[in-house]
Amino acid sequence: MNEVKINLPDSEIPRQWYNLAPDLPTPMQPPLGPDGKPVNPEMLKPVFPMNLIEQEVSRETWIKIPEEILELLLKWRPTPLKRAVSLERHLKTPAKIYYKDESVSPAGSHKPNTAIPQAWYNKQAGIKKLVTETGAGQWGSALAFATKLVGLECKVFMVRASFDQKPFRKMMMQVWGATCVASPSDETNAGREILKKMPNTTGSLGIAISEAVEAAVTDPTGSSRYSLGSVLNHVLLHQTIIGLEAQKQLKLAGVKHPDIVIGCAGGGSNFAGISFPFVKEKIDGAKIEIIPVEPASCPSLTKGPFAYDNGDIAQMTPLLPMYTLGHAFVPASIHAGGLRYHGMAPLVSAAALEGLLKPRAYDQVKCFEAAILWSRTEGTIPAPETSHAIAATIDEAIKAREEGKEKVILFNYSGHGLMDLVGYDQFLSGKLPAASLSEAELKESLKSLEGLPKPSLAKTGRW
Amino acid sequence: MNEVKINLPDSEIPRQWYNLAPDLPTPMQPPLGPDGKPVNPEMLKPVFPMNLIEQEVSRETWIKIPEEILELLLKWRPTPLKRAVSLERHLKTPAKIYYKDESVSPAGSHKPNTAIPQAWYNKQAGIKKLVTETGAGQWGSALAFATKLVGLECKVFMVRASFDQKPFRKMMMQVWGATCVASPSDETNAGREILKKMPNTTGSLGIAISEAVEAAVTDPTGSSRYSLGSVLNHVLLHQTIIGLEAQKQLKLAGVKHPDIVIGCAGGGSNFAGISFPFVKEKIDGAKIEIIPVEPASCPSLTKGPFAYDNGDIAQMTPLLPMYTLGHAFVPASIHAGGLRYHGMAPLVSAAALEGLLKPRAYDQVKCFEAAILWSRTEGTIPAPETSHAIAATIDEAIKAREEGKEKVILFNYSGHGLMDLVGYDQFLSGKLPAASLSEAELKESLKSLEGLPKPSLAKTGRW
Repeated sequence: MNEVKINLPDSEIPRQWYNLAPDLPTPMQPPLGPDGKPVNPEMLKPVFPMNLIEQEVSRETWIKIPEEILELLLKWRPTPLKRAVSLERHLKTPAKIYYKDESVSPAGSHKPNTAIPQAWYNKQAGIKKLVTETGAGQWGSALAFATKLVGLECKVFMVRASFDQKPFRKMMMQVWGATCVASPSDETNAGREILKKMPNTTGSLGIAISEAVEAAVTDPTGSSRYSLGSVLNHVLLHQTIIGLEAQKQLKLAGVKHPDIVIGCAGGGSNFAGISFPFVKEKIDGAKIEIIPVEPASCPSLTKGPFAYDNGDIAQMTPLLPMYTLGHAFVPASIHAGGLRYHGMAPLVSAAALEGLLKPRAYDQVKCFEAAILWSRTEGTIPAPETSHAIAATIDEAIKAREEGKEKVILFNYSGHGLMDLVGYDQFLSGKLPAASLSEAELKESLKSLEGLPKPSLAKTGRW
Repeated sequence: MNEVKINLPDSEIPRQWYNLAPDLPTPMQPPLGPDGKPVNPEMLKPVFPMNLIEQEVSRETWIKIPEEILELLLKWRPTPLKRAVSLERHLKTPAKIYYKDESVSPAGSHKPNTAIPQAWYNKQAGIKKLVTETGAGQWGSALAFATKLVGLECKVFMVRASFDQKPFRKMMMQVWGATCVASPSDETNAGREILKKMPNTTGSLGIAISEAVEAAVTDPTGSSRYSLGSVLNHVLLHQTIIGLEAQKQLKLAGVKHPDIVIGCAGGGSNFAGISFPFVKEKIDGAKIEIIPVEPASCPSLTKGPFAYDNGDIAQMTPLLPMYTLGHAFVPASIHAGGLRYHGMAPLVSAAALEGLLKPRAYDQVKCFEAAILWSRTEGTIPAPETSHAIAATIDEAIKAREEGKEKVILFNYSGHGLMDLVGYDQFLSGKLPAASLSEAELKESLKSLEGLPKPSLAKTGRW
């Protein structure tokens, strides 16, 4: 009987997060303010607490995880590393397919890995309330969960379309005691202005971000802050616990280095989480192919330029150096809502610019096909986001069979699809549309980059 | 840092199921046919395969789990034994609260523990297709999952009310390739007759059972069989892997015997799963309080008589010796759909008759209160069924505090509530009705027992 699950005991949970920034061969370029000058950490103080800003700009490679955070993460971490033996058998591949099962978290995805530390650091800084936005609700539910456990209030601006049509994650937030309001709301200037112009709008993530930031920074008590679920350095940092656990577990399984590491990529946080410790191994000389997989309808890494761009449509955030489709880009309404972001996290972008990553993009129909094959062999139902990583894993396992190579593939099972069954229903009844970005749409959306400063494209190109 | 999860390595998965029947001080009374005579195993052959019938009537204490079944169970088993440290702290209790997390299965509950072996034994017997019924869909989705992995076809008759109003578990079944039809359907005589009389009926579990059994036994190829998700001896047998794992895990945590074992009880399968290995410890002399918790609206163990009764409303099944509210009983439509059964599994009933169990019943409002406290301390959202076990656990932990005793409480976290958020929403908005059975309703429903044979009430009464 083969071991198909490699568990780490609680005592083996990683005690430090891994920060890729100082290990990158070419230093990252700084975020810029509206004046085109580098953003000073002080300027972020109304938005984030100083302890998280310090992590955001840190040049230390290893950052200690406080004991109190570890105790909360232990509720579901270390997550199991599992081997997809039934899928291997079905594909007749000599490859060994391992995956980190992040779906076992209380919110059902990798998001609590950063929600817990963000809530905890805010609490340490004396903050009483966190405000955030959410699309389909993955991030909002994770932050609701984390703030409740840490003891903070939580307010979530949820895009109205999801608030009305996908009420279940809203209900999860309420179970965890958060206040969830449909955005645009009449609680902020940003929301009221939009409602005046478009009373029947179903909202957008861009509007919800504006409302959440405004609500956080204008709290007269000064004890509210904003929280973001992806893109930023400190968010990616917290996710590295996924890859760090996987390194230990692969060693237990007798694997020195995986040959291939795969993660789906939207804002970049789950991909960074599984891959950055292996990017480090690659920088140190290991031969590893590292593959971020994005939707063909939102292909920032594979089709976008590396540019300075805002993180949001309203251009309230600093300019970040990243692969982007332009902040005015409106992605198709694919089921993988968590991958619908116009840009890619600056740290992931920097690694891609260095040539450390081999990004690819898949259409959602191919991904649902892969998800169904997964469900009918391995038995679990993956999130539509996760299905992108599964589709690439299947392609790589088939390639290994064709090449006759016993490769080790590791991917991140970032979340379950139990709240996304409508997408499966649409796919199985043949009604799921293909969705990819046309050259004309791309050209149009890239116009929003005109007039913005340009980053340097220098890179070492060692890979 | 305390260990809050006790994992068993794959190699430590139990290799045998535990059969309580031969260890019961008073032998169980046999099921009876419509003629009042004991049912002969041969009579069940059109309904179940012989290998499962053998388990149903087995007098062996330990039954080997085939290697191929173990390999499939290993996809999620052994499940973690976790400690509810945040709840303990919140309650300021000296009790240690351990729970088996059965929500990690692909279908989200304990049901696959028997769905996998049932599918496998049918496959071994040359059966091609399993037919079953389902209410809210927990059992139907578990069997769809299991048949797909084993390689059988699956057909599920789903009560129309749930089919229309709770479509998500239907979608899960379809992801796993099962055919799911609303019951009553026009595919069976039973269904057609009901539809003729009541064209607009929303169905019932009783009708769906009749349709599933009919569809199985009338398949002209003879290669279909029926499958049941609770009540029967072989179903409970398969669930004992829960308690057997818990025994090993408690030993690893340094616990010789738990003081209290708790499970929610509807048909009895998850309760039997967690408790029977500890019932054995109790028979062998350990001092353990074993508590099945049922809904106040469906209180078979706490309010029903021990009687011979049919398993279904249509009186198609044999007469089973069990605590029952009468086969004509129609429970209130509480959210814990999995606990809405008029009878209690004969094996659980026999243990209760012996005085080995201390059953209690709770109203669903109390249970949702407990579930919210759990979600806001431990962080996960339990199924409404599971919330009954949690409510009893909280009561016992408070009692331990009042008595100043360091008790060890073990309960079964039988499933997650991610498909049951509407119940939470109703509770949080103050709209959840209390639901308990009145004496008048009980008296009325017990009339359906009139004229049936009576079982012996002899018992050793050692406890």
